[in-house]
Formats: sequence, structure tokens, C-alpha cells
Amino acid sequence: AAVKKIAVLPGDGIGPEVMDVAVKVLDKVAAKYGVSFEKEFADVGGIAIDNHGTPLPESTLSLCKASDAILFGSVGGPKWESLPPEQQPERGALLPLRKIFGLYANLRPAIIFPALTGASTLKEECISGGLDILIVRELTGGIYFGQPKGREDKPERKAFDTLVYSESEIARIARVAFEAAMKRNKKLCSIDKANVLTTSVLWREVVLEVAKDYPQVELSHMYVDNAAMQLVRNPKQFDVILADNMFGDILSDEAAMLTGSLGMLPSASIAESAFGLYEPSGGSAPDIAGQGIANPIAQILSAAMMLKFSFGMIEASDDIEAAVRKTLDQNFRTGDIFSEGMTRVNTVQMGEKIIANL
Amino acid sequence: AAVKKIAVLPGDGIGPEVMDVAVKVLDKVAAKYGVSFEKEFADVGGIAIDNHGTPLPESTLSLCKASDAILFGSVGGPKWESLPPEQQPERGALLPLRKIFGLYANLRPAIIFPALTGASTLKEECISGGLDILIVRELTGGIYFGQPKGREDKPERKAFDTLVYSESEIARIARVAFEAAMKRNKKLCSIDKANVLTTSVLWREVVLEVAKDYPQVELSHMYVDNAAMQLVRNPKQFDVILADNMFGDILSDEAAMLTGSLGMLPSASIAESAFGLYEPSGGSAPDIAGQGIANPIAQILSAAMMLKFSFGMIEASDDIEAAVRKTLDQNFRTGDIFSEGMTRVNTVQMGEKIIANL
Ligand SMILES: CC(C)[C@H](C(=O)O)[C@@H](O)C(=O)O
Ligand SMILES: CC(C)[C@H](C(=O)O)[C@@H](O)C(=O)O
Repeated sequence: AAVKKIAVLPGDGIGPEVMDVAVKVLDKVAAKYGVSFEKEFADVGGIAIDNHGTPLPESTLSLCKASDAILFGSVGGPKWESLPPEQQPERGALLPLRKIFGLYANLRPAIIFPALTGASTLKEECISGGLDILIVRELTGGIYFGQPKGREDKPERKAFDTLVYSESEIARIARVAFEAAMKRNKKLCSIDKANVLTTSVLWREVVLEVAKDYPQVELSHMYVDNAAMQLVRNPKQFDVILADNMFGDILSDEAAMLTGSLGMLPSASIAESAFGLYEPSGGSAPDIAGQGIANPIAQILSAAMMLKFSFGMIEASDDIEAAVRKTLDQNFRTGDIFSEGMTRVNTVQMGEKIIANL
Repeated sequence: AAVKKIAVLPGDGIGPEVMDVAVKVLDKVAAKYGVSFEKEFADVGGIAIDNHGTPLPESTLSLCKASDAILFGSVGGPKWESLPPEQQPERGALLPLRKIFGLYANLRPAIIFPALTGASTLKEECISGGLDILIVRELTGGIYFGQPKGREDKPERKAFDTLVYSESEIARIARVAFEAAMKRNKKLCSIDKANVLTTSVLWREVVLEVAKDYPQVELSHMYVDNAAMQLVRNPKQFDVILADNMFGDILSDEAAMLTGSLGMLPSASIAESAFGLYEPSGGSAPDIAGQGIANPIAQILSAAMMLKFSFGMIEASDDIEAAVRKTLDQNFRTGDIFSEGMTRVNTVQMGEKIIANL
């Protein structure tokens, strides 16, 4: 069997705790499927600043380059918040990783697990039967990286950023979204602000061109402000949502919070090759770090996404997802998703239950 | 008594119907307070395209210039949707009006009327006791108007927009937000994306400087993606929200929808002078236009904001608000906010009830 090399970057806060559990899940998968994962650990984010003076040390970068995928925990915390933005853990680690590895396609599922409908702040009737949205976000272009970006100090302080998109950047992320829609309910909603932004006019134009190759997908366009409303009004109208880097950042977080299951949501950031970075959608949760009570499910499902998208191990990936669902159906809950009548477990125990169900 | 001149621009869809009612409310106010409003009507938006070939005709603009305030209905509809973006009613009328009159401060209350808690898609417990957020959005700068904005066609199509802010633009809108906070619960949350945008770093810097003049206001900063989440998770944590043009566009719509009372929400767009444009937060609702069933409350409350901000008629403004609340407490409801056990009324009837309560 092939050996897959994984760069494991636990990071800060709850990252190391939940990563431990995800790694054990991978061990079980390796045993069950007769494959071999070579896991090498490295520092990233705040801990890397502490140990190496920079959030993304050269050694970590080399490890990533020598690997088939990156399994990422989470970074950041109060300790590093007063650093200048570009040196902070999140910005200083994630943005360069995305750019260096060309991770242009960010897939963020916003799913309500049937066992957890109660956790949403939305009324039951808005999400009855669950919710399953996939947000496809462009991740290496747009206003995040556009040049020029800078500031002037005379005659007064003035700062500027550039939002720029080329047709090839738009077309390749649109393809990812259409392909995803084909595997799901064949509905795609493309987000833009074409009534104000020139880039959005091009975005819409190119999405319409790509759509010709996917006649079975029902395509719609929505302004970003309306999308922010519609997600709150009736999230079930959405299947796949396609958005640029900035709009995708905002809408994917809004959608994730709607599910009430932030500790459950994984994400994938994928390159044109099979290479990818996989991380929980939530943050490093410094408030509960070190207590062993964090929910490891988002990290475990991130590993499942890695198996699927970078290693082509569809069956093993589905297997992990099924084990997670089963464990929830057995009423085991970490504190963040606990409710009356459930069995409260800690991080390690949740991992054990899931592994037992694998 | 002073004569105030109002440019009345009903626009499209439900605009004319709800404007009719708002004008009658103003007549009642004029009688009650012994003031005189000179109201002149003009075309704007789609109807202006039909009648004059452009969404903002010169004649309409002259009328606005000769007036003390603009009472705006709503514009747009399917008939004009296939026009190029810059010729469409919304974009072609609103953006020039904002720029020409320097309407830099957009005030958008997101309020749940106690009588209407049930209309929100959020669970009762998230909004118990109502919700009352004021969004202060910068309206004449940022990526809406930043130059350069354009596109290239070679070697491939490429489009760009510029996000730019100067310290004076940020400082003046920040002052509006701090002043508003002083009159409310003295809590201000400033939105940015300082971990990615250079403009946001300056935004935060200048807001902190302005904050020195308002030591009693509790200031916090939040990334826009987190704000989109927090509005869904716990909207009651917010009092005044300050945001740039684009972020304010998205978050104010999200917050408005959270209230479930979109047909009830007014907005004000104000210049450095007392001049302002007042309009409902919702759209032209072409689906129900012409049926006489639209909710006129947003338009009426927009007129109330005009009295307050452009004419300094605080008492009359509060009077209208009280009449609206009383009418809701009397259980009168238009179709959009109707629920079991209430009395259903149409647009005109709702207006009559409110006027009777004035
Ligand atoms: C940390 C930050 C730079 C990042 C982003 O804006 O992309 C984060 O919010 C995310 O969505 O992964
Ligand atoms: C119509 C459009 C240009 C406008 C905006 O984006 O500002 C609208 O969404 C608004 O918020 O008033």
C-alpha cells in the first residue's frame, strides 16, 4: 500500500488536544484499510513565534513541501494579539501557506447534524430536516492579495487595497463549484456585488461562461448583501454557494454559525494538484484550551476531508463521517454541544467513542 | 413657522403606494405642529428610465438641490434588471445621489418591535426583550467609489476595484457613531478586517484616536467575518455598530433580516449639513406592488427620521414612532407581519390607524 506523508501542524489553543485525537483516528483508518500514513509534526502560529520567532518557520514550510497534505489545527490567542497584523499567527501562517501552495479552492461545508438541530439559534422550522450547504470560496486572489496595497501619510493618512480578479482565477474556482454541485443537488448560487464592483461584473460574466459546460446545474446569482439576509431568512434555499475570497470569508462564517455546530465543521483548502490543507472552521478557543474538553469532531472531519480530496480514499472518509454521526446518535456530547439528557464526554473520550464506531 | 421643502421621490414597485401614506402622515404632523412642508414629487429609478431615459434625471436632481431633504421610496424591478449595472435603477440613482450630496453617514436601525418578536427567524431566547442595534455605515467612500476601477482585456480579461480610505473620511463617520453611542447605551463595536486589509489597519487606528474624545463609550473592534457570526449567535451583544461602506452594506442587511421586520425599518443617509436622504431599508418588492397591501411603516419611519435629523423636529419624530408602536400594540398588521389573532389591514388602512394615533 502507498505511504502518504502528512504534515501535522497542531498550532495553538485547543489545536494540540484535538489534533491528538484526529491522529488516533487516522491510525485506526490506517490499520483498517491497510494503508500507511507518515505523520510528521511541526510548529505553526503562536507556538512557532515563541519557538522560532516567526509564525511560519522555514522548517515547517520544508516539511509541508515534502508532504502530500497538511493537517492543520488552529492558531492564535491573546498572547500574540498585540503583534502587528502581518506577524500575527493567523495572518502570518495561513495567508502565506495558501499563496505558496496555491490553495485556491476553499470548501466549507455548513451542515447541521440531524442529532444537533437544537444547537442552532434559528427556529426549528427554518432548519427542519437539517441543513447542508457547501460554500466554495476563492482563496488565493481578490482583495486579500491584490496589489497595490499600502498607505500614504501626506497630505493626510490614506490607505488602499486592491480587489482584482482575472478570468482564469474566476473560471477555475467556478469549475470547482459546478463540479461540487453536480455531486450534490445541482443548485449553485454565485455571490457578487455586480451593481457596484467591476470585478463582480467580470465574476458574473465568467461564471455564466463556465455554466455552459454544466447545463444540468441550476445557476443563480445573488448580491452579497442579499445573501447575508437570505442565509438568515431561509438557509435551506441554498445548496452550493460560490463566492470570492472576501465575500466567502464573511458568508461562510455566517453560515457556519447558523448551524450552531461550529466545533463540528471542517474545511479544505485545495490546490490544482491533489495537495491540500485541512483545518477546523472554528478557532483556537483559548478560553477552553488545556482543559481537555474541546470538541475534536471538526478536526476529525478535517482529516476525513483530507482522505477524500488529497488521498482519494473516499470509502475511508465516508467511514469516519459515519462513525461521527453514529457517535452523536449514541448521544455522546462534548460541552459545546451538550444538552439535557445527553452523555457528557471530554475530548479524549469523544475520540475513543468515534474510533470504536469506526 | 418655517417652511421645509421636501423632494418626494416615490420610485418603483411599492414605493408610490407607501409614499402616499407617508405623505399623509406628514400632513397630519404639519397640522398638529403648525409647520408647513412643501412637497414636490419627481421620478427616480425605473420610472425615471421609462419617462426620461435615465434613473436620475436632471430635473429630479435640481429639485433635490432646491430642497431641505429627500424622502425616497424604493427603486428597481424585473423590468430594468437586464440593463448594464451602472444604468440600473438602484445603482444609477442611489450611488450618484449619495456622492453628489455627500451623504456619508448611513444610519440603519435594526429594531425588533416588542409586538413583533415572533417574526424573527431567531429563537425567542436570542432576542428576548427585543433587539435594538444601530448600524452606522460609511456611505461615500471605500470600494464603492475608489479609483482606479476598471478592466483590461489582454492577455486575459481582468477587472479591478480599489478600496481606499483617508483618515478624515474615517474620523468623521467614527464621530457620528460615537455621538450616536453617547445617546444610547454607550457601546460601540467597530468592524474591520485588520488582519488582511491595509485600509482596516488605518480604520482601527483612526477609530482609536477618535475614541479619546469619548472616554465614556466602551469601544470594541471585531473582524467582519466574526461580526457576521456574532449577529447570528447573540445579536443582543451589540448597541452601535460602525462599519465601512461594503461591510456596512452586508452587516446592515443581515441585522435587518434578523429582526424579521424588514418592512418596518427606515434608514437615513446624512450629509455634513442637515441635508439627508431617507428611505426604507427594504426593496421595491415588485411581487406585491400595485396590490395596496405593502407595509407602509418603513416609509413612515423614514419620514420620522427626516423630521429628526434634517429638520430638528425631535418631538414630532418621536410622536410618529409612538403612533406606530401604538398601532402595532392595537394588533393591526399588514400581510408581511400578520399572525394568528391579529387584525389584517392594507396599506391605506395601516396609514389611517397610525394617523389616528398621532
Ligand atoms: C485569519 C484570516 C486571515 C482568515 C481569512 O480571512 O481568510 C480566516 O478568517 C479564515 O477564514 O480562514
Ligand atoms: C443598490 C445598492 C447599490 C445599495 C448599496 O450597495 O449600497 C443597496 O444595497 C443599499 O444598501 O442601499
